[in-house]
Amino acid sequence: MILSGSVRAAARLMRDIEDGMPGTDVALKELYRHTGRARVIGITGSPGAGKSTICDQLIKAYRNDGKKVGVVAVDPSSPYSGGALLGDRIRMQEHATDPGVFIRSMATRGNLGGLSASTCDVIKVMDAMGCDMVLVETVGVGQDEIDIARAAHTTIVVLIPGMGDDIQAIKAGLLEVADCFVVNKADRDGADKVERELRVMLDMRGARKGEWTPPIVRMVALKGEGIDSLKGAVAQHGAFLADDTWAGALAVQRRKCELVEVIRSKLRIAVDGVIDSYAGGIDAISAELGPGGRDPYSVADELIEKAIESLSEKK
Amino acid sequence: MILSGSVRAAARLMRDIEDGMPGTDVALKELYRHTGRARVIGITGSPGAGKSTICDQLIKAYRNDGKKVGVVAVDPSSPYSGGALLGDRIRMQEHATDPGVFIRSMATRGNLGGLSASTCDVIKVMDAMGCDMVLVETVGVGQDEIDIARAAHTTIVVLIPGMGDDIQAIKAGLLEVADCFVVNKADRDGADKVERELRVMLDMRGARKGEWTPPIVRMVALKGEGIDSLKGAVAQHGAFLADDTWAGALAVQRRKCELVEVIRSKLRIAVDGVIDSYAGGIDAISAELGPGGRDPYSVADELIEKAIESLSEKK
Repeated sequence: MILSGSVRAAARLMRDIEDGMPGTDVALKELYRHTGRARVIGITGSPGAGKSTICDQLIKAYRNDGKKVGVVAVDPSSPYSGGALLGDRIRMQEHATDPGVFIRSMATRGNLGGLSASTCDVIKVMDAMGCDMVLVETVGVGQDEIDIARAAHTTIVVLIPGMGDDIQAIKAGLLEVADCFVVNKADRDGADKVERELRVMLDMRGARKGEWTPPIVRMVALKGEGIDSLKGAVAQHGAFLADDTWAGALAVQRRKCELVEVIRSKLRIAVDGVIDSYAGGIDAISAELGPGGRDPYSVADELIEKAIESLSEKK
Repeated sequence: MILSGSVRAAARLMRDIEDGMPGTDVALKELYRHTGRARVIGITGSPGAGKSTICDQLIKAYRNDGKKVGVVAVDPSSPYSGGALLGDRIRMQEHATDPGVFIRSMATRGNLGGLSASTCDVIKVMDAMGCDMVLVETVGVGQDEIDIARAAHTTIVVLIPGMGDDIQAIKAGLLEVADCFVVNKADRDGADKVERELRVMLDMRGARKGEWTPPIVRMVALKGEGIDSLKGAVAQHGAFLADDTWAGALAVQRRKCELVEVIRSKLRIAVDGVIDSYAGGIDAISAELGPGGRDPYSVADELIEKAIESLSEKK
């Protein structure tokens, strides 16, 4: 169904993945051999950096080339509402009627979360659906975001001028996952400073022979300035990935992360199941905890043991 | 040792927790019943908002009251380097010789358990050590930060003027975790606008009867302006938590988050065990994966099955 392009079947599968429904595995196993064609591009950076605008520009650019585009908007900052950002939704609306664009917002659900695993699975569905490009937009720079960045072929890190001292820290952390930097809002004061600091950091790291040096692209995304350069940089990195002698090693690396995510996700879903099987669920279990009651470490051991039992019983 | 105030023993345990060493569980189970006395205050917001300066001011204020203060500086943006912010380290140095202040920087490092879980555990160690206040400073607004915020009694969200449109998004996500807002750098243009927008959002949410309405404190933290108001707001929220009829429900909510963190942490470690149980290691397995080879879902099933077998043999 999905392979033949049924958008509705794909949408249902993606929703099931996000909700951690059992049985999505069967469909994913089936789909897996039809994946590997899409280029996955991560777009990450601090809130307010303009990631959505850049994403929007990339959609337009790839659509102009006649490519099918998937977009996964990951919004871990809103775990309660489970919803995507209203602003993004509105901005993305103009693509909503375009049959060549698939947009999916992700939030964490379920007792134990699991954003990165479900995001990877949703990327695969879009890949199997025939998307040529899959753009993954992540808000923030937590562990989940870094795991997601590792799943992408090319990760774009977006920075803006005037973020203060702490930008050093962001850069240090994101340096390792960045394949391309964007200095957005480059018409503002301080853009030169950001670019200079980035170059210093890249120089300090040094380039091993044959290693990729992330280009720095200046943009004023709201006005569409710099989008061509960004598209060029992404294409260049794609050529590097394909040509380079490390391509194989990088692919294995990506598959390794993927496998770890899948294992983690399976165990998590099993424990979620055990929690839900208790009368009163996790709230009832939690009410027994406290300095005067049970400690969470022992309770966790017990729940995991039960989950493992349930997994071996299934056999 | 830790209960009798041995700083060295506590520091070693905290390092073991951060490094994900086995066996920390035993100590934590022991400590758990001595926790629950510290007030945990989260300080979160975008990079560059001045969180460290505010943290610094709060340390001074609480030290003046003769309170023991613990500080956990969380830096998830640097998982590879494992380093904390140099700037923060320097700023915090003046407290380094004060025996009533305990400072611990957290990074994700090789920690399999995840940042939020280990942060929660470190908070507990500080609590058991007799800290009256534990300040937890988090960079960014990813899922980890939100999990950490949920572990705090009072979460302060720091905003600054001039962050652009997406501030709406940040506010929407952080609105749910914020018990107090700080508009820092309030001497800058746009401070009124930020405050006005916050009020509109708080109004839109509406206040259920008896519910806490987060106060908005204007600060110029670098000059120490507004620190008394912030301290007052934190104290007020503390009184609310103690008096309110929901206090019990909130405590259960916090314990629930804690339990989820512990489970997640143990699961991560379990996944590693599953992988290590395989001869040839994960690299060999990963090399077999791919659209033309094996799929990660089946391999994950197989590995989990093997791990379960080895577990039941051990029993």
